[in-house]
Amino acid sequence: MTQMNRRLLLVSRPQGAMAADNFQLVSTPLAPLAEGQFRVRNHWLSIDPYMRGRMNETKSYAAPQPLGEVMVGATAGEVVESRNARFAVGEKVTGAFGWQEFGTSDGAGVAKVDDTAIPLSAYLGVAGMPGVTAWYGLNKIIAPRAGQTIVVSAASGAVGSVVGQLAKLAGCRAVGIAGGAEKCRYVTQTLGFDACIDYKGGKLHEDLAAATPEGVDGCFENVGGATLDATLARMNAFGRIALCGMIAGYDGEPQPLRHPALILTMRLTLQGFIIMEHMDIWPQALAELASLVSQKKLHYRESVVEGLERAPEALMGLLKGHNFGKQLVKLI
Amino acid sequence: MTQMNRRLLLVSRPQGAMAADNFQLVSTPLAPLAEGQFRVRNHWLSIDPYMRGRMNETKSYAAPQPLGEVMVGATAGEVVESRNARFAVGEKVTGAFGWQEFGTSDGAGVAKVDDTAIPLSAYLGVAGMPGVTAWYGLNKIIAPRAGQTIVVSAASGAVGSVVGQLAKLAGCRAVGIAGGAEKCRYVTQTLGFDACIDYKGGKLHEDLAAATPEGVDGCFENVGGATLDATLARMNAFGRIALCGMIAGYDGEPQPLRHPALILTMRLTLQGFIIMEHMDIWPQALAELASLVSQKKLHYRESVVEGLERAPEALMGLLKGHNFGKQLVKLI
Repeated sequence: MTQMNRRLLLVSRPQGAMAADNFQLVSTPLAPLAEGQFRVRNHWLSIDPYMRGRMNETKSYAAPQPLGEVMVGATAGEVVESRNARFAVGEKVTGAFGWQEFGTSDGAGVAKVDDTAIPLSAYLGVAGMPGVTAWYGLNKIIAPRAGQTIVVSAASGAVGSVVGQLAKLAGCRAVGIAGGAEKCRYVTQTLGFDACIDYKGGKLHEDLAAATPEGVDGCFENVGGATLDATLARMNAFGRIALCGMIAGYDGEPQPLRHPALILTMRLTLQGFIIMEHMDIWPQALAELASLVSQKKLHYRESVVEGLERAPEALMGLLKGHNFGKQLVKLI
Repeated sequence: MTQMNRRLLLVSRPQGAMAADNFQLVSTPLAPLAEGQFRVRNHWLSIDPYMRGRMNETKSYAAPQPLGEVMVGATAGEVVESRNARFAVGEKVTGAFGWQEFGTSDGAGVAKVDDTAIPLSAYLGVAGMPGVTAWYGLNKIIAPRAGQTIVVSAASGAVGSVVGQLAKLAGCRAVGIAGGAEKCRYVTQTLGFDACIDYKGGKLHEDLAAATPEGVDGCFENVGGATLDATLARMNAFGRIALCGMIAGYDGEPQPLRHPALILTMRLTLQGFIIMEHMDIWPQALAELASLVSQKKLHYRESVVEGLERAPEALMGLLKGHNFGKQLVKLI
């Protein structure tokens, strides 16, 4: 009996907000492996903000997701069948197999991971791309000195939570921005940030001013829109802003920056970056992150939905901030 | 008979647009020189966009201009009386004596200049602060490679004209943005830019796209608002934007940046700078600029109004783009 692979294809592009019917679930028989190939049963699918950008046809750093094909995405799973000497059945791996239950590969872009010291899912979050993103933006763009104040938006999320914790480990004051009292409590009490502003509280500017009495030296921006405007207004001279995400504008109207003249008057540097273009720092960053996780110096949290068919719902929720920590889809 | 010094004091701060009556002309007797002092008859007063910012009370890189005092400004003139061994009567100097006919100094911040190879007024423009500003932003922030495309706004102005000419000397494609057909003709025909867009033509985006067929690698921004939005939309990956001025918003509503997400998707760097904070590069920059001017490799143009009392009018005109080249007030 041929085993079936359930897959989610992007079948239409959103006009404005995305919807579940931009995707179609199909079931395809698995083809026999060729020599040199192996098959992975994906256990976890990572849901990330960048995915929304790929659904559009607009000019960006990456080609748009083609229609009619399996939606892109990072995955973690287990080798279940192999005709490749380097990958044995039972080994755990991460890859970019996308929104499907099985992946087939010759090994390119697939990494073996050790899930004895830290859980497999962590390689999609704190010890994976989101963690490395945090590490790069903080260390290579903001490059803070001890005693400086760092603000990070989406502070309870997969990237933001690591930014603030690394800032604390570097001796900085870490101030988060998150949505809702529960997330803010988590950010201060569990993650150890010095303060966290609830952007839903209706007085973002005042609250941020109170939490940053000495101004802001570094900003790690995941959201854009109102949170970036608020942080910009608090920046100290020669401050640095790592622009990692503009999720506020991904699913609707572009969000303007209201007072760009502050970049001039405060002599700021704003730098956008894409972590996949800085592969040289991944080994160092991953090693540091995995070590900190195993020592319990780096905490993380996951939002899990079960079943491939719920991936579109998970992405829609992520864009609205409904997740709490790293958003994952459990596939098995 | 005591000689009188005519001076313009800032006496009120503008609400919105500035007006001539924000200033008051007074005539003050010159005090006798103390030992170590010398007196300069200012021949030229430089009118620069930053002056508008100093008229406000808002947080900026420099303290606001105090009310009731002589308005700040760079000047060039001649020593007419001296009790200082280093400055002899008849020597030409530049200084920051502000909006007045005479300056008195002990030498701090005053530089002797040679007006035999290049005219005295050039030390307030192409071979002075505006020229150094252009040199720094282009060489240290944009750092272009030959063959790249550089866009500069206010291209016929004191700073912009130097940016484009230095870019051409570096082997780049130089594209200007200026207001009106006459300025654009000057920018291409006299300054040698490859193209110049008339922002008053009503199709800035289309015209800029046509003039930058290979996109834009570096942007030197003097204006902000619509011109920055237009250039941002043409930036190539890893492009660099030197933010030197936001004159569009100086005299009224702050101008937003409409699509800051492009900074992320195109991995751009935006950096604001103030040339007075980079004194280390001035000697090299000034030497290069003066040499290029004397070799006729760097062209410039001046807008001159005569008489101190017309300085407010000159600044108002500058903010509206009425000047054509470096704006000066002739004081003698």
